[in-house]
Amino acid sequence: MNVSIIGTTGYGGAELLRILKQHPEFKIKSIHSTKEDLPIWNEYPHLYEIIDKNLQGIDSVQIADQSDIVFLATPSGVSGKLAENFSGKNIKVIDLSGDLRIPAQAYLEWYKHAPANESLVEKAVYGLPEWHHDEIASAEIISNPGCYPTAALLSLAPVVKENLIKPDSIVVDAKSGVSGAGRALSRSTSYAEANENLRVYKVNQHQHTPEIEQQLMKWNSALKPITFTTHLLPITRGIMTTSYVQLTKDYTSSQILELYQSVYEKQPFIRIRPENSFPSVKEVAGSNFCDIGVHVDSRTGRLTIVSVIDNLMKGAAGQAVQNANIMSGLDESAGLGFVPLYP
Amino acid sequence: MNVSIIGTTGYGGAELLRILKQHPEFKIKSIHSTKEDLPIWNEYPHLYEIIDKNLQGIDSVQIADQSDIVFLATPSGVSGKLAENFSGKNIKVIDLSGDLRIPAQAYLEWYKHAPANESLVEKAVYGLPEWHHDEIASAEIISNPGCYPTAALLSLAPVVKENLIKPDSIVVDAKSGVSGAGRALSRSTSYAEANENLRVYKVNQHQHTPEIEQQLMKWNSALKPITFTTHLLPITRGIMTTSYVQLTKDYTSSQILELYQSVYEKQPFIRIRPENSFPSVKEVAGSNFCDIGVHVDSRTGRLTIVSVIDNLMKGAAGQAVQNANIMSGLDESAGLGFVPLYP
Amino acid sequence: MNVSIIGTTGYGGAELLRILKQHPEFKIKSIHSTKEDLPIWNEYPHLYEIIDKNLQGIDSVQIADQSDIVFLATPSGVSGKLAENFSGKNIKVIDLSGDLRIPAQAYLEWYKHAPANESLVEKAVYGLPEWHHDEIASAEIISNPGCYPTAALLSLAPVVKENLIKPDSIVVDAKSGVSGAGRALSRSTSYAEANENLRVYKVNQHQHTPEIEQQLMKWNSALKPITFTTHLLPITRGIMTTSYVQLTKDYTSSQILELYQSVYEKQPFIRIRPENSFPSVKEVAGSNFCDIGVHVDSRTGRLTIVSVIDNLMKGAAGQAVQNANIMSGLDESAGLGFVPLYP
Amino acid sequence: MNVSIIGTTGYGGAELLRILKQHPEFKIKSIHSTKEDLPIWNEYPHLYEIIDKNLQGIDSVQIADQSDIVFLATPSGVSGKLAENFSGKNIKVIDLSGDLRIPAQAYLEWYKHAPANESLVEKAVYGLPEWHHDEIASAEIISNPGCYPTAALLSLAPVVKENLIKPDSIVVDAKSGVSGAGRALSRSTSYAEANENLRVYKVNQHQHTPEIEQQLMKWNSALKPITFTTHLLPITRGIMTTSYVQLTKDYTSSQILELYQSVYEKQPFIRIRPENSFPSVKEVAGSNFCDIGVHVDSRTGRLTIVSVIDNLMKGAAGQAVQNANIMSGLDESAGLGFVPLYP
Repeated sequence: MNVSIIGTTGYGGAELLRILKQHPEFKIKSIHSTKEDLPIWNEYPHLYEIIDKNLQGIDSVQIADQSDIVFLATPSGVSGKLAENFSGKNIKVIDLSGDLRIPAQAYLEWYKHAPANESLVEKAVYGLPEWHHDEIASAEIISNPGCYPTAALLSLAPVVKENLIKPDSIVVDAKSGVSGAGRALSRSTSYAEANENLRVYKVNQHQHTPEIEQQLMKWNSALKPITFTTHLLPITRGIMTTSYVQLTKDYTSSQILELYQSVYEKQPFIRIRPENSFPSVKEVAGSNFCDIGVHVDSRTGRLTIVSVIDNLMKGAAGQAVQNANIMSGLDESAGLGFVPLYP
Repeated sequence: MNVSIIGTTGYGGAELLRILKQHPEFKIKSIHSTKEDLPIWNEYPHLYEIIDKNLQGIDSVQIADQSDIVFLATPSGVSGKLAENFSGKNIKVIDLSGDLRIPAQAYLEWYKHAPANESLVEKAVYGLPEWHHDEIASAEIISNPGCYPTAALLSLAPVVKENLIKPDSIVVDAKSGVSGAGRALSRSTSYAEANENLRVYKVNQHQHTPEIEQQLMKWNSALKPITFTTHLLPITRGIMTTSYVQLTKDYTSSQILELYQSVYEKQPFIRIRPENSFPSVKEVAGSNFCDIGVHVDSRTGRLTIVSVIDNLMKGAAGQAVQNANIMSGLDESAGLGFVPLYP
Repeated sequence: MNVSIIGTTGYGGAELLRILKQHPEFKIKSIHSTKEDLPIWNEYPHLYEIIDKNLQGIDSVQIADQSDIVFLATPSGVSGKLAENFSGKNIKVIDLSGDLRIPAQAYLEWYKHAPANESLVEKAVYGLPEWHHDEIASAEIISNPGCYPTAALLSLAPVVKENLIKPDSIVVDAKSGVSGAGRALSRSTSYAEANENLRVYKVNQHQHTPEIEQQLMKWNSALKPITFTTHLLPITRGIMTTSYVQLTKDYTSSQILELYQSVYEKQPFIRIRPENSFPSVKEVAGSNFCDIGVHVDSRTGRLTIVSVIDNLMKGAAGQAVQNANIMSGLDESAGLGFVPLYP
Repeated sequence: MNVSIIGTTGYGGAELLRILKQHPEFKIKSIHSTKEDLPIWNEYPHLYEIIDKNLQGIDSVQIADQSDIVFLATPSGVSGKLAENFSGKNIKVIDLSGDLRIPAQAYLEWYKHAPANESLVEKAVYGLPEWHHDEIASAEIISNPGCYPTAALLSLAPVVKENLIKPDSIVVDAKSGVSGAGRALSRSTSYAEANENLRVYKVNQHQHTPEIEQQLMKWNSALKPITFTTHLLPITRGIMTTSYVQLTKDYTSSQILELYQSVYEKQPFIRIRPENSFPSVKEVAGSNFCDIGVHVDSRTGRLTIVSVIDNLMKGAAGQAVQNANIMSGLDESAGLGFVPLYP
């Protein structure tokens, strides 16, 4: 199958190239960017002699003609408009941006710029494969989940769906590596300012908040707004969410673990850690895994849930390919068997 | 005044040397360790030609004779015993370990080894200068607060004392640099395993939990057990605590800020950040500051409090010298005017 | 083909597992260590639910019976003795240690402990595939090159073999990430001491010096001893060698480049960078590439050669598998198509 | 004495603020930048409540009127022009840029933009205090040495001046932390690209080359052009130069060490390490020290010299204040007694 990437020069695009180059069924047909006519290794020297394609301009008609699947790795605000060009053209579209994830009004409020076409947003399937496998399989357009929402939702789903927690008790303390901010230059992601540092940002204002809440409320309509806080870690890749919820009853850690293990038993990319074992972010680096550990504090009746992903993989490009696999009728994990790079 | 350090080869001891070398009134009389007769630069080459003293064995009688102040930078389990040797000898003692902070039973439960002499624990004043200035001034022995408790308590004190929060709602998500684990070697603090990583540890079992709760309950007897979680950051120095509490009324961020500013107005080492500004850990590196930022989320009624310190300074050696200053009738900030090292 | 690994718990062993798990022809038969009966994920949680084998003790007879290939990822001093057990048993052996690389007397002088059996050292083929392909193909036992020698030799070979440089002019300034020191704990590889630091070590005394010189002198008998200096970088993976040699004539950068391109034209893992482009270590992370850039300074007549590898891949496990592929008649790059993990 | 800083928002300017705030004799009169009317903590939150000045525009007349000393922490190309405004006005000027260091023609060739007024360049004293103390004491304008030249020159001076080395044999392999590149944003200094990386840059083209050569040739007219290579380290602060020179005779390491010790005996900021001990960059972090270690390789007759500084201190702001002290008749080390921040 022929796949094309639009927005190839960002980190999400580069990670798609890494995956797709080694994929057994997908063939990179063309790569696109506003920096047309440069060899890709000029932007990314690590691809020298590996991917010998040049970046091309974005001609949606031509791309639609020659591709079976197109990945939009373009920024929020751009993706939504591009996606329209591919709608109804018998081509599978996977958008990695936030443009198709939430309704227009919430988008405007949290993203603070104009939302995408509303019918497109409605048409897009939210591509969280562990929970939406069948809708994804028949979708034409996928809205690929955000990095933070992926880690948070996968770790909260079992207790939220089973209604084991107080609906107003969710606090998600999230920490992300710097690559999550993309390749655009900024002071807070410059080396001298991010290194040996930990920074909290967008306190109570992160645009992933409504995305997380929307899905939680689909699972459990009683859910109330959550507290969601984001921190910038001095690492390149990786997200950890440490979530705190108040249990409604005196469950033990092992009861909660049993639930998680049973819920995710057949999921190839979810690893539930044994009791008293918790994942660290490096243990999933470069892979598509989401690892989860839980612990109940009997003193407070609170459950702590720790979830880690590689933000460029399960949090972006890896999950996008997982969705593409499902849409294409392939094994969900085709081309995604990366063993984490440790140490 | 003559000061001696016992346990000089750990990071707390080395930081005491850095401070005391530049202190206007304290003179380093002798430095002690189990590695006797080595020049200190052999252990710490950065002190070459700066501190030309040799490490000596630990002869408590001699140390008491020649010192006005003694710092115990020895590990928990060792400090408690050493402190006895200096009790009642007209010498000021500041213990940086956890040995004198909490009662015997709680100590046994959380530290999991034998507690110190109980009368000594009772005699020791908990050295949080912003709240215990007068007791410190007249104390003979100080129990220097733990690194995490310093950051957590300073940031929670105003709302806890003023009774503005629900007593069972405190969640403290804490993150620390690697130097907090001391100089002893371990796999989780080795470079290849800590770098590019974030690790959660001692989930619901950290020994600083009872220390924090004890002080909170002194301030407000209605307080319930807290949730306290610790993470290992890939940085050398610095702690951030992100704390979440449920407000009892609809306060605004600016109302909460006013309270913090007024409470800490005269404290030389507390910097309350303006609205919508939050401190990052590097902004206090190498200094004795504790910086605090707050934000109320009107959607959830929850207050988020961000607090940062340098764990070796305000979290250990800096606070110890601050206590020594107060005990000696000096200006509290004597020799502690370090401007943060940024970037 | 069945392969076994001895010394699985070091970083070289873990990297072999990562590669072999994804290899199309090799099957991990058994993994061995002195820590027998532990599941490997207990040592390396990133392998949880990926490799479900337990570590076993080292029973050479059984290993020889059930394996076609055995990798010795054991330390210098151990490997040499183990290798004897597999000699003459119709099993391919690849030793990643330094034990079989240099003659007994040089070994004693530089490694400062007892050398391996001399006939075994003579029998072992030095496994630098770009230069010894045919000997490797028919070898029974391979001495896998050291990490520094791999980077240095590949980058010096063309000008040394072609006799373009003054024989006493070679200076190799080498820099390595911390994983090169192995998983054993040490102060200089602890996070707080290695981070934000650069350390020079074993100045003029590194045990890789005679290994490099021996091969250079095989290529050009006029060569004199070299200056070889090693530095510890605050990164986990990666080696860079910056080499300085005095040219015998006024060659231009482009002439030297042409030589390198022509020499390495057919080598799948050598990437010669275009003029004025130089590789950085992260551009090969997680891959088996060795990237080389060159520049002639007309002011001094000196050639600068920059070479980078991932020390655990082309510098250890990757090259070991490359050798195993050649010994087994497979495509040299089978199972080694890793795209560098960037950023 | 009143001092003013122009170009306060770069890292050199911020470091000057850190030093001057704690200086016993100098008083910060005003701080200047093109970002006028901002409080400095807006740019540098670590200075919140420490330095309460606002940035002002650059009015040279007013600055000259109110200041005894002015520091130009402005970029190359800007400093040279500003310096003219203060020439002949009975005010001491210290320029931290490269503008006044080398003659017009060399400047044009290596900096590739227009040089400063030539008479100003001639008037400026090259401010390397260990070698130019008396000229500095009577200078009106100081050209503060570059970071790399400071480390390289201090480490090469003894053997170059004493004529112990072959004049065409100098190779300086230099490594710098990211803050050396300044605060302007660039891809190579962004976190995700610099972290876990080592990058070689400006190979044989670094603008500090002629600065180093000029001083070396003043010391020893027989000296030939040197090879000077620069690498970007994944650390914030610190420079190491590893220099290789061919000795003319069979000196031992201890003979060379004796020379260094005797040459630098009275210099407060030079620490010559004992035999077989070498400095690492973190051992001088935040301080004004330059630490040097040497080793002779008897196999090759080459001397290796390792030199480390904090690039923002001895490599910029620290040395600038050292020069200001000398110009003002103060103790050279006034306000510079910073103990290195370790770990």
